[in-house]
Parts: sequence; C-alpha cells; structure tokens
Amino acid sequence: MKIYLAGPDVFLPDAVEIGRQKAAICAAHGLTGLYPLDNAIDLTAPDASRQIFAANEAMMDQADAIIANLTPFRGAGADPGTVYELGYMAGRRKFCVAYSNDGATYADRLTRFMDVTSEDGRLVDAQGLTVEDFGLVDNLMMIHALELHGCPLVTPATMPIDVWHNLAAFEACVRMAAARLIAP
Amino acid sequence: MKIYLAGPDVFLPDAVEIGRQKAAICAAHGLTGLYPLDNAIDLTAPDASRQIFAANEAMMDQADAIIANLTPFRGAGADPGTVYELGYMAGRRKFCVAYSNDGATYADRLTRFMDVTSEDGRLVDAQGLTVEDFGLVDNLMMIHALELHGCPLVTPATMPIDVWHNLAAFEACVRMAAARLIAP
Repeated sequence: MKIYLAGPDVFLPDAVEIGRQKAAICAAHGLTGLYPLDNAIDLTAPDASRQIFAANEAMMDQADAIIANLTPFRGAGADPGTVYELGYMAGRRKFCVAYSNDGATYADRLTRFMDVTSEDGRLVDAQGLTVEDFGLVDNLMMIHALELHGCPLVTPATMPIDVWHNLAAFEACVRMAAARLIAP
Repeated sequence: MKIYLAGPDVFLPDAVEIGRQKAAICAAHGLTGLYPLDNAIDLTAPDASRQIFAANEAMMDQADAIIANLTPFRGAGADPGTVYELGYMAGRRKFCVAYSNDGATYADRLTRFMDVTSEDGRLVDAQGLTVEDFGLVDNLMMIHALELHGCPLVTPATMPIDVWHNLAAFEACVRMAAARLIAP
C-alpha cells in the first residue's frame, strides 16, 4: 500500500532527511511512503513549478492514501498546498489521515497572530471577518473530511518543542493507516 | 449548470448579501450558483460543524464546477477551507475556476507579513522554511491545478480597494465558466 506524504516538510532546510525518516517509519509498518521530493525535477527548468505539480498529482493518483501534516504554517492554519492535496485525495476517494503538532483550537491559536474580539455573539478577527468557533483544531472542512474519508485528526497531548521534526503524531497516523489498509 | 461558490466570503459580516450578488451574476450568465450559506443549518446544534461539512460536500457533489475565491486570507495565502474545496472538486474531476483580488506574487506578498531573506540561493522565511519563488500568486499546487483542471487563476490588473466586495474578477470567472460549460 502506498501512502502520499503531504506537508510543508518539503520547505524545511532538511526536507530530504525528514522525507527519508517518514518513509522509514512507513516501511517499518509495512507501507510504502511516497514523498514529493522523491520526484527528480530540474528546478532551473522554465516550467519547473508545473513539472512539480504534475509529478505530485501523478504520485497522489498512484497512492492508496494520504498522510497530511496540518501543523500550522505561517499563521493560524494549515499550509494551503498541503490542504489542496488533502482535498484532492478526498475527492479521489483515497483514505485520508492527517496530524497537527499543535492541538490548540483554531480560535485560540488565532489570538497569537491578531486581535480576536466578540461581536453580537460571534468571534471576529482584526478585519471584522467571522472566526470559526466550533472548538476544532482547524477549518471544519478539513477536520470533518478526515472523519468521513479516513481517520480523525491526530494531535499530541502536549505540543512538542520542535513541531517540524517531532514525528510521534506522524507515526500514530502510519499505525492507523496500516491497521486499516493492510489485510490481517 | 451548477457552480459551487467557494470562498472566505462566508466569514464576511454581509456574507448572505455577497452570496446573493454572486448567485445573481451567475444567473445573468445562465448558470446556477450554489452558495454554502444556502444550506439551512441550526448553528446551535451540537454537531453544527459536521452538518455544515456534510451539506457543503453534498453541494459540491451536485455541482458541475467550482469558482473559488483565493484572495489572501489572514496571511499571505488563500483560505485553507476554500483550498480544501478546490482540491476536492479537482479530485472529483469537476471544472475548476478561481480568482484572487491580490495579484502580487506569493513571495512578494509574504514580505508584508514577515522577514524573507535569501540564503544559499533560496528564499527563506522567519522560521528558516523555504519560500516558494516561482513568480506565482500562490502555492503551485493550486495555480497549476487550475490550469490543468479548469482555467488559469484570474487576478485584477490593479488590486481593488475593497478586496472582499469587488466582484469584477469573480464575474470574469463566471464568464469563463459559462463559455466552457454552456453548449452554444
């Protein structure tokens, strides 16, 4: 069984090494991890970004499942590139699993980045836009998609010191995927 | 032909009115706009967020296309909830169209929110994570998905003063969708 390994991990300085570690954890549980950086792309090509997209989409199409890293990225919510891939895989009816190394609710987390106030019974951000306040870790579309199309979001009991390198929640996802995808 | 109208518009104080305007523009071009807030959900129900998800997914499943508002939301990139829906519709092989009312490149826009520096030939953010630098308006997954699964992202020549209420780029999307989806 092949698992597409989605996440902003590809933007880390040691992105290749993280991919190697994730693939090794998959292998230890009888699964094959497919990591976007495994695709050999010439980054100096004029259409490099399109080649990356095409290779990622082909990799998703051949995968049986996705494990997405939804740890907040440059703000209160998950990386949109990763979320696109989660949506795509849900649309393809693949098995969807994800984790976030920050288990705070979205509404609580947003207060780290901007003023959030209460107005007529709803929470609003600094621009006056409503803040989702259902006690969920991120936008309801991702959270409930995981419940319906795979497994509920995995979060650690306490936030690890290094949210980008701690793979405990990732390994919990791999165990769940293996239990569901590998016949006993 | 039914078009799912995705976007953080649902978080605006006048979210219902914006949906009404978008649906009217669709109707003027012979299309039926489906807006998430058209679903009647009891927000005091204990499972309100799950009901919203289920209603949105059912609406997407019955739509022929999506027009997604990818205008940057609480940071440098698009709203992850909207991006999830774009990915889902691409996965379902529906026709995908989107606009952003901010046509700056992602890398340029990010400098409004944090320090971005150059390191060994790559751009890095304040946390040391690589910044995508392909001259695209947002993450390459969304940008190239639109080219492959619908029409290229629509952006205005100049950023409107009110990015949340100016619907010129949205109307351009509707025209494109009508030209492709309605038989002559």
